[in-house]
Amino acid sequence: MKQFVYQFKEVQKPDKNLFGGKGANLAEMTKLGMPVPQGFIITTEACTQYYNDGRKINDDILDQISKKLKELEAITGKKFGDVNNPLLVSVRSGARVSMPGMMDTILNLGLNDEAVEGLARLTNNPRFAYDSYRRFIQMFSDVVMQQEKSKYERILDEVKEKKGVEFDKDLSAEDLKEIVNLFKDLYKKSQGEDFPQDPKVQLIEAVKAVFRSWDNERANVYRRMHDIPYEWGTAVNVQSMVFGNMGDDCGTGVAFSRNPATGENVFYGEYLMNAQGEDVVAGIRTPLPIATLKEQNPDVYNQFVEIAKKLEKHNKDMQDMEFTIEKGKLYMLQTRNGKRTAKAALKIAVDLVKEGLITEKEAIMMIDPKQLDALLHPQFDDKALKNAKAIAEALPASPGAACGKICFTADRAKEMAQDGDKVVLVRLETSPEDIEGMAVSQGVLTARGGMTSHAAVVARGMGTACVAGCSALKFASDEKSFTLNGKVYKEGDLLSFDGSTGKIYDGLIKTEPAKISGEFATIMEWADKYRVLQVRTNADNPKDAENAFAFGAEGIGLCRTEHMFFEADRIPAVREMIVSSTVEERKRALDKLLPMQRKDFIGLYKAMKGRPVTIRFLDPPLHEFVPHEDQEIKDLAKEMGLSFETLKRTVEDLHEFNPMMGHRGLRLAVTYPEIAQMQTRAVIEAAIAVSKSENYNIIPEIMIPLTCDIKEFKYVRDIVAKEAEEVLKENNVKMTYKIGTMIEIPRAAVTADQIAQYAEFFSFGTNDLTQMTYGFSRDDAGKFLDVYYAKKIFESDPFARLDQNGVGRLVKMATDLGKSTRPDIKLGICGEHGGDPSSIEFCHKTGLNYVSCSPFRVPIARLAAAQANIKFPRN
Amino acid sequence: MKQFVYQFKEVQKPDKNLFGGKGANLAEMTKLGMPVPQGFIITTEACTQYYNDGRKINDDILDQISKKLKELEAITGKKFGDVNNPLLVSVRSGARVSMPGMMDTILNLGLNDEAVEGLARLTNNPRFAYDSYRRFIQMFSDVVMQQEKSKYERILDEVKEKKGVEFDKDLSAEDLKEIVNLFKDLYKKSQGEDFPQDPKVQLIEAVKAVFRSWDNERANVYRRMHDIPYEWGTAVNVQSMVFGNMGDDCGTGVAFSRNPATGENVFYGEYLMNAQGEDVVAGIRTPLPIATLKEQNPDVYNQFVEIAKKLEKHNKDMQDMEFTIEKGKLYMLQTRNGKRTAKAALKIAVDLVKEGLITEKEAIMMIDPKQLDALLHPQFDDKALKNAKAIAEALPASPGAACGKICFTADRAKEMAQDGDKVVLVRLETSPEDIEGMAVSQGVLTARGGMTSHAAVVARGMGTACVAGCSALKFASDEKSFTLNGKVYKEGDLLSFDGSTGKIYDGLIKTEPAKISGEFATIMEWADKYRVLQVRTNADNPKDAENAFAFGAEGIGLCRTEHMFFEADRIPAVREMIVSSTVEERKRALDKLLPMQRKDFIGLYKAMKGRPVTIRFLDPPLHEFVPHEDQEIKDLAKEMGLSFETLKRTVEDLHEFNPMMGHRGLRLAVTYPEIAQMQTRAVIEAAIAVSKSENYNIIPEIMIPLTCDIKEFKYVRDIVAKEAEEVLKENNVKMTYKIGTMIEIPRAAVTADQIAQYAEFFSFGTNDLTQMTYGFSRDDAGKFLDVYYAKKIFESDPFARLDQNGVGRLVKMATDLGKSTRPDIKLGICGEHGGDPSSIEFCHKTGLNYVSCSPFRVPIARLAAAQANIKFPRN
Repeated sequence: MKQFVYQFKEVQKPDKNLFGGKGANLAEMTKLGMPVPQGFIITTEACTQYYNDGRKINDDILDQISKKLKELEAITGKKFGDVNNPLLVSVRSGARVSMPGMMDTILNLGLNDEAVEGLARLTNNPRFAYDSYRRFIQMFSDVVMQQEKSKYERILDEVKEKKGVEFDKDLSAEDLKEIVNLFKDLYKKSQGEDFPQDPKVQLIEAVKAVFRSWDNERANVYRRMHDIPYEWGTAVNVQSMVFGNMGDDCGTGVAFSRNPATGENVFYGEYLMNAQGEDVVAGIRTPLPIATLKEQNPDVYNQFVEIAKKLEKHNKDMQDMEFTIEKGKLYMLQTRNGKRTAKAALKIAVDLVKEGLITEKEAIMMIDPKQLDALLHPQFDDKALKNAKAIAEALPASPGAACGKICFTADRAKEMAQDGDKVVLVRLETSPEDIEGMAVSQGVLTARGGMTSHAAVVARGMGTACVAGCSALKFASDEKSFTLNGKVYKEGDLLSFDGSTGKIYDGLIKTEPAKISGEFATIMEWADKYRVLQVRTNADNPKDAENAFAFGAEGIGLCRTEHMFFEADRIPAVREMIVSSTVEERKRALDKLLPMQRKDFIGLYKAMKGRPVTIRFLDPPLHEFVPHEDQEIKDLAKEMGLSFETLKRTVEDLHEFNPMMGHRGLRLAVTYPEIAQMQTRAVIEAAIAVSKSENYNIIPEIMIPLTCDIKEFKYVRDIVAKEAEEVLKENNVKMTYKIGTMIEIPRAAVTADQIAQYAEFFSFGTNDLTQMTYGFSRDDAGKFLDVYYAKKIFESDPFARLDQNGVGRLVKMATDLGKSTRPDIKLGICGEHGGDPSSIEFCHKTGLNYVSCSPFRVPIARLAAAQANIKFPRN
Repeated sequence: MKQFVYQFKEVQKPDKNLFGGKGANLAEMTKLGMPVPQGFIITTEACTQYYNDGRKINDDILDQISKKLKELEAITGKKFGDVNNPLLVSVRSGARVSMPGMMDTILNLGLNDEAVEGLARLTNNPRFAYDSYRRFIQMFSDVVMQQEKSKYERILDEVKEKKGVEFDKDLSAEDLKEIVNLFKDLYKKSQGEDFPQDPKVQLIEAVKAVFRSWDNERANVYRRMHDIPYEWGTAVNVQSMVFGNMGDDCGTGVAFSRNPATGENVFYGEYLMNAQGEDVVAGIRTPLPIATLKEQNPDVYNQFVEIAKKLEKHNKDMQDMEFTIEKGKLYMLQTRNGKRTAKAALKIAVDLVKEGLITEKEAIMMIDPKQLDALLHPQFDDKALKNAKAIAEALPASPGAACGKICFTADRAKEMAQDGDKVVLVRLETSPEDIEGMAVSQGVLTARGGMTSHAAVVARGMGTACVAGCSALKFASDEKSFTLNGKVYKEGDLLSFDGSTGKIYDGLIKTEPAKISGEFATIMEWADKYRVLQVRTNADNPKDAENAFAFGAEGIGLCRTEHMFFEADRIPAVREMIVSSTVEERKRALDKLLPMQRKDFIGLYKAMKGRPVTIRFLDPPLHEFVPHEDQEIKDLAKEMGLSFETLKRTVEDLHEFNPMMGHRGLRLAVTYPEIAQMQTRAVIEAAIAVSKSENYNIIPEIMIPLTCDIKEFKYVRDIVAKEAEEVLKENNVKMTYKIGTMIEIPRAAVTADQIAQYAEFFSFGTNDLTQMTYGFSRDDAGKFLDVYYAKKIFESDPFARLDQNGVGRLVKMATDLGKSTRPDIKLGICGEHGGDPSSIEFCHKTGLNYVSCSPFRVPIARLAAAQANIKFPRN
């Protein structure tokens, strides 16, 4: 028979998967001979069993709990429900990783009408006993039975008012007895039955509540955000109570072996004397800094410091500990690796290496790459932020702090920025035409749209702060002002917001730029030492490329040339090209674009200082470049000297039923080879120019998007190669260049052996590949994916985390097929997954050469790549 | 060194791939000792080489031609360009299969200013010699040099006018000499150089012209239509000339060993005395039936009949032969398996088996399955058609003949049909709401749209005749009448059209229904004997199901339930369901649909008489069921008792950027499980009812569309299974049922091992699978696929012919993966490919259990399945 329940002292190997983090650590502390109130653990497997049995605790497990409870009574010398010496326990959840949103703690379980009297006698403190009882009833009703919390609060308030006292502590034992009775009445009324007097019933109900809380909505949301599988389940810890609130020689608190905010190696924490855990949190009394304990009780303090050092050494990490002092004696209630800020994480990791406690590899493994994000964007100055109050909160769509003068259109943003103003762009929602305006803004705030709206996606790519979907923000009908939190904001007014928190502030809050130095630089250096996967960046302009270079990008993996097409000085020529009815007209328009594109590419080559630059040719459907409203079409027609009807017809001809699956990517180059020719010329001419002026050895990489077939690719490849050769000949230059393709269409993955005959490199465009492989478009899937999450069909967003099971199979297949015909083919990934740690691990394991991600994710990717290689070494 | 040129008599094995059909047969006749004017063949490999060399005939091949020409001079005792005894040749193309659109024939090549004199002397017939010369110049200018034909015609006309003669034959030798000189002047003016006097130059130019013609547009279009690979290339046949126009003991003609129209075993053909081939075609003189030859020249006739019998026996098929009689001697110029009508094909195949010439299997292999299509739809009565003249011609979008009273709306079509009228529906274009009206019509005619327009696709599926995209048809502004060929047509006027030819006729032409009997039935019987692949049908209503049953369908492979949702009596309840804001409201609407769906399914079960019926649950996005224009929304809102704003908002909420990749398929069932529950109930209740009333053993098959993930499928499967069990329990019935899925999303194919853990059958939805795998939608791809065809990137339409290289790899993968976890999984295909012979062969080879196609393709599929198993036997 499988063992589902273990005494702390019974545990041989502190397996977090089985016992949860909390339980494993309690068992371990017991083993190390530390003062831990004894108890037992109901394993995570019992939780899984509970769900498999249709949300029931089966008899076997119930029996095991009874048995362990008996043992615990023997260990403590107390008895459940005993009038003379009652055993009281705390019941706490404990998953593999700590998870907010789940049920946390029930204290004082085991109290009933008789045991409370016993406790009163035993402690000679009836007030304490009845206060414990009323707390227990209150917690049990709320957390276990999910009754309305406020009704119990109201009773407490009414009694206090009646008695004319302000604080709980001023209530007498008799008052608390009265409250206990009122609570029990309310419990009966709410629950339809008496408050359970049998401690075993209390215990089983509490255990069930912990199991249930694994599946509540907040827990599910958190799991999805942090890639925690539903299957894991939670363990339950049942621990005998010790009391920090039995007198002035008692106390309770939380301490860290190092400072979790800065990482400094100082004992850190706070505590309250004569208090139970919740009092520390409640904030009515101000806790004391842990240093004070040194004076109040040097013995306990020294014992504690010694334990902390020992635990840190044992667990090789900074510890976060809960403790209680009962009648002058220290008890450890919990220890775990402490949560810390990104800054602290880096300092602690580097310090631990210096102290000889861990290796560089261990230091690397210890840092969550995603956490670095916080250090990679401008931040509000801490002091300045302390005095600010948020006026609204919306979706934290792209991290970083922004402050500046409000403007409402991309054009105004550009004008004001040119005048030297720092601006924030506030829009109902953004569109591709706003990109330039977004780029010059400190941040973007939208009233509509979600985490995957245009504004959010583009801002994340740019590394620009964005707060999206602020529905509290109401635009005036002329969209020249808005109301927020009761105040009217006009152009030029000052506003600040934080894309990491979604908070919006009135006025100006000082910000500080991001940089990599100190411990951050050390960790990055180590990461580079241990990784084999290269990290490139997605960058469409020199500014992004320079940022990425500073963050350590080893090249550009994706330059989306279409972003250049949207710029104000180009869009007229782009549109002229689109409305052309002959090849000659089209070439004339393209001739205007050539020098601009060449200049773009020169800028990129210079910014990357000779590192590889992959330039992707025009990708989006042409209708993205033309207006769709009649009035706009009229204006444009006039501007272009066309009749409204002609332009309208062109726009209508460009309409597609499923633009995602329409005339785009290299399909444009097949229809209009002259576009690819112009882009080829711009790439090669730029490479020649920069090779000469900067003396770099540039090997241009031209990437053809959306390939689905070998002949299709070859057709475009041949056009590109022919033009490239011509340009080289004209310039009398020899230069190596590579022509490759995106793999973003399932058929390309499935026929990769054929395509690799001509393609010199593959770059997996996992955004589109995910869409095509799943058969749903990102724009439309939002409508039903929430239901999929709610019903646990999907546990994570396949656009954020690469679906290794499906899309990953295609990536693996394409990798193997590609290598089968071109063993030295270069393989990369340039979807948003390129910056996601779990996806990076997959890329590493699959044998890709590089990942490419947005500039602000480069350090994250460097760290994640190192972690992947430490976990799965590759040579 | 590779041999590129062969004398006829040199050929050992008549390999059509190398020599082309014409060449192989000429060589074979030579070998059989038949009277064939000798010559040589330039192989298809020489053509491929020509293209590989950049459209040049390389020196090696030129040398070989020279050598073979020398040999031919020795064989014939004539010399190229000889003044006394000139060798004249014909130059003809000859691909593996005969292919219209390519260059056909150059006659009399070798004539020049000297040789013509020799020919005149030799034949003692200067008129004949100069006529031959002028014909040659004319053909050479037109076919080889692609000069404007009409200019030469004009000279001929001018000389005839000047001489006052009406027919060519009335021109004298001197007149023809004058014409030759005028022709040569015109040639020089057009070409910038003299008409080539060197016969070798003439020959090489002619050979190049044949090679070039392999790549002309008409040939490319034909190849695409008939799945002929571009790589094949064409051979060139150079044959010494014999003359049917040297006097009254000369003649030329074409004969068939059996009647190609009826298949009757009688010698059939026609000929002209004193004529060259082109005269037979020109139609100025009326050719004589071949039987006449028996009287004119019994020896030649008997020799010919004997040769024909011998060739038929040798080639095991009916022969189509070209012959010439020169001075009383018979020459065979060509033989090939004759083209024939579908009816003749069946009769000949069955007769040949009866006569012991071929086996049943050979008979099966001999019939092109696609040809049967012509026999499976109503046909115009031959006699009636003879007197009719087409008033317009448009796209032959769905085969079959239609005639009836014109109506302009689906509603009127239904009303008139209910009144017993035969109607034809004439629309600008059709939409899903027209389906019922289309179903009751004899045929559909649209002014807009192509071969893949809604009207065309739906009509083909229904087997209803359709002519699409008739731009000559101009609707009046009120769409209550139209003008065509100068006549105004109103509702009730009579119109006929033929979906096989695209021709439209005024008034009523009698039609005859399709039936399988006689030789057709025999062939079908044999096909069933030799095939292992089952053939099911796609049918959404009892009428289609009954048709398919009569055509031999072994079950329904796909019933699209959404087609039922569009019907006029249901759409209100469907819309009520869509606008529901609560589960209860939705259930109430679904309750109204339940009895209707049940009735539908009862009808299908009855029509299929106990054979399996696969019912696919609701698939299209819901916005297809609501109107989109403001006025229509207003009308519907009033009808439904909703505010315009509410309904408008619902319609807007349903909008999708890429509907193909949106909220549809089982995604609907995940969001609204009650839809799947209602459909399950309808299926099971119907099965119970028909099992009882008809005493069939029905095993319902429920098919979940658009699966992309195992958990997603399991979620819906569980809902369906639970409801099914409930219905069975309510009815106290035991019944086996199967729940399976479409495989139409790449991810489903890639994870088929997982999905097969729960899915009891797979049906490959290759329409959507093709779209997703290629990453282009059928609706949008039309815009660029033409360019792909023109540039030879694609050679066939992947929606018509399964792309075995890409989509096929996914089908194979899903098959293998599916069998790995469920060895007895049932596998079928239900895309349009299910009726395409080459795709059926692929399905057979891949190991599927069945194909499902539209009712009118069932016999085609039965034959194709038999052919596949004869070619690739499977047990």
